[in-house]
Amino acid sequence: MTTARKYVYARKFEGFPKEGDLQLVEEKLPQLKDGEFLSKAVYLSVDPYMRAYAPSLKLGTTFIGGQVAVVTESKNITHPVGQYIVGNFGWRTHTISDNESELYVLPDFDKLPLSLGVGVLGMPGNTAYFGFLEICQPKPGETVVVTGAAGAVGSHVGQIAKIKGCTVIGIAGSDEKGKWLVDDLGFDHFINYKDDKFKEKLEQATPKGVDCYFDNVGGEISSIVISRMNLYGRVSVCGSISGYNDTEPAKATTIQRFLVGKQLKMEGFIVRRWTERWGEGILQNKQWIQEGKLKYSETVTEGFENMFQAFVDMLKGGNIGKAVVKV
Amino acid sequence: MTTARKYVYARKFEGFPKEGDLQLVEEKLPQLKDGEFLSKAVYLSVDPYMRAYAPSLKLGTTFIGGQVAVVTESKNITHPVGQYIVGNFGWRTHTISDNESELYVLPDFDKLPLSLGVGVLGMPGNTAYFGFLEICQPKPGETVVVTGAAGAVGSHVGQIAKIKGCTVIGIAGSDEKGKWLVDDLGFDHFINYKDDKFKEKLEQATPKGVDCYFDNVGGEISSIVISRMNLYGRVSVCGSISGYNDTEPAKATTIQRFLVGKQLKMEGFIVRRWTERWGEGILQNKQWIQEGKLKYSETVTEGFENMFQAFVDMLKGGNIGKAVVKV
Repeated sequence: MTTARKYVYARKFEGFPKEGDLQLVEEKLPQLKDGEFLSKAVYLSVDPYMRAYAPSLKLGTTFIGGQVAVVTESKNITHPVGQYIVGNFGWRTHTISDNESELYVLPDFDKLPLSLGVGVLGMPGNTAYFGFLEICQPKPGETVVVTGAAGAVGSHVGQIAKIKGCTVIGIAGSDEKGKWLVDDLGFDHFINYKDDKFKEKLEQATPKGVDCYFDNVGGEISSIVISRMNLYGRVSVCGSISGYNDTEPAKATTIQRFLVGKQLKMEGFIVRRWTERWGEGILQNKQWIQEGKLKYSETVTEGFENMFQAFVDMLKGGNIGKAVVKV
Repeated sequence: MTTARKYVYARKFEGFPKEGDLQLVEEKLPQLKDGEFLSKAVYLSVDPYMRAYAPSLKLGTTFIGGQVAVVTESKNITHPVGQYIVGNFGWRTHTISDNESELYVLPDFDKLPLSLGVGVLGMPGNTAYFGFLEICQPKPGETVVVTGAAGAVGSHVGQIAKIKGCTVIGIAGSDEKGKWLVDDLGFDHFINYKDDKFKEKLEQATPKGVDCYFDNVGGEISSIVISRMNLYGRVSVCGSISGYNDTEPAKATTIQRFLVGKQLKMEGFIVRRWTERWGEGILQNKQWIQEGKLKYSETVTEGFENMFQAFVDMLKGGNIGKAVVKV
């Protein structure tokens, strides 16, 4: 008999998630029925969206999230023992499933690390690939701004923009992140959003204005970026992490007059929208990695029991690249 | 020799336009050269966009605006005496022109009033037609919200939405306007944005959420409407009159999280974008009027010398339907 460990959403987040909001509990799993299989988490993902979705989650349920898992027992011929899968099982170590809609078989990664299945070759990677290319439609020579630039998605978006021949400005919250973006990933400029002269620095870094903005943060920083945009600019709204931990809805300078004046298009998205093209995104990102055009970084936390801390650290901007938990 | 009267932009608007910001002056016009013609304003337009564009206008220039004019003298075979035209000549009574890019010949209105050339059969009418249909792409049975609903554009948009089989909620600032929208124009609901219970009333009026939002106002009202939107909702941003007379940029609840959560699309526009389809809009709007499907109202001010007052009244929401000045 297998005992799973899992995190239960025990108390609504108020502001920053606190110790005790998620409860680590044990669950004895039953014997497998025909068609079912048991898998064991290998890498679990912590992502900003988890904080964003929390207000609509029911208390008492397993907290949401994806994982790379390996099949350890099976009564399902499609999922034999030893197979690696990516499952939306939530924060849990062991899972019994027979539901194809909550998982897919990990594609062939050649020799790339398995953890990329929740990173650059998984949901965050496809978020960058589809969310940026489909909504921003970047053209060579255009200027692209990315906020949350040192995160899993932002760092990936900026590199796609470079691949597409754009000038890329990354915005994040520490100069260490900025150094990584410029020196290692090839971003053209970095601006620390905590800089008192943020607005002036953005103006200096974007002498021809901004054509595409990939928005991970919302709030006043986004209003400032949008005020710099050119005619027919495109804004892809991926998230608004600046407000996720606010207890009151945040206010910022309204953006409508910029939308009208420059005839901007702004669109929010959830990556599920491109489920039917999932493989395309993974394949392209894998190819870019193999060609040396796309780099990634992971901030790995060891131990399932440290997952809550990894989540909070990520929300505070402690990670460079993708935050993952290794079991 | 003809003497024109014109309004010169003499002092930058600070908050609400004040007496003296525009100066009414006389200008002696020269003799016509070959290719030129002289026209005399019959109806002049006052529109919200004039306030929005003012910060980028040069002091000393004629204030911007469109007019229906009649040709009174001509050395241009395309524009004979007696012809009616619509010209972007600014606030002036007499104009010499030879520039086709700033005018077009008034289309055949059958027996409809000439003033409609700056209204429902002119720029505001095409703003409603293209700005709503092209960007919102409304479908039968959907719920449409319009702010600035009693203005020239808003009242028109709501009626197009009814023609397209939608449920329409109009938002404006007086119950008198609301009565006109519901009783005369066939809007399904009206909500006064000054109502303390605005949010609750909007919820009651939109039990199935909001699919399309035509935004004339920006600010907090827009944030509330956007928070009610359904998956894949569309927001057409036409203006943000709530902030035009602010001396500090307005702040409002940020909308990014609604854009992401419901995967909304939001686009600002300037109607010039559809210049090449101008005639299509006029023809369709004319047909709807003739079929009795599209009604219009005009708030007419008599006298060129009262134009500034008409402008300020319009900005304060004093008009129902299109504000025009008759010379």
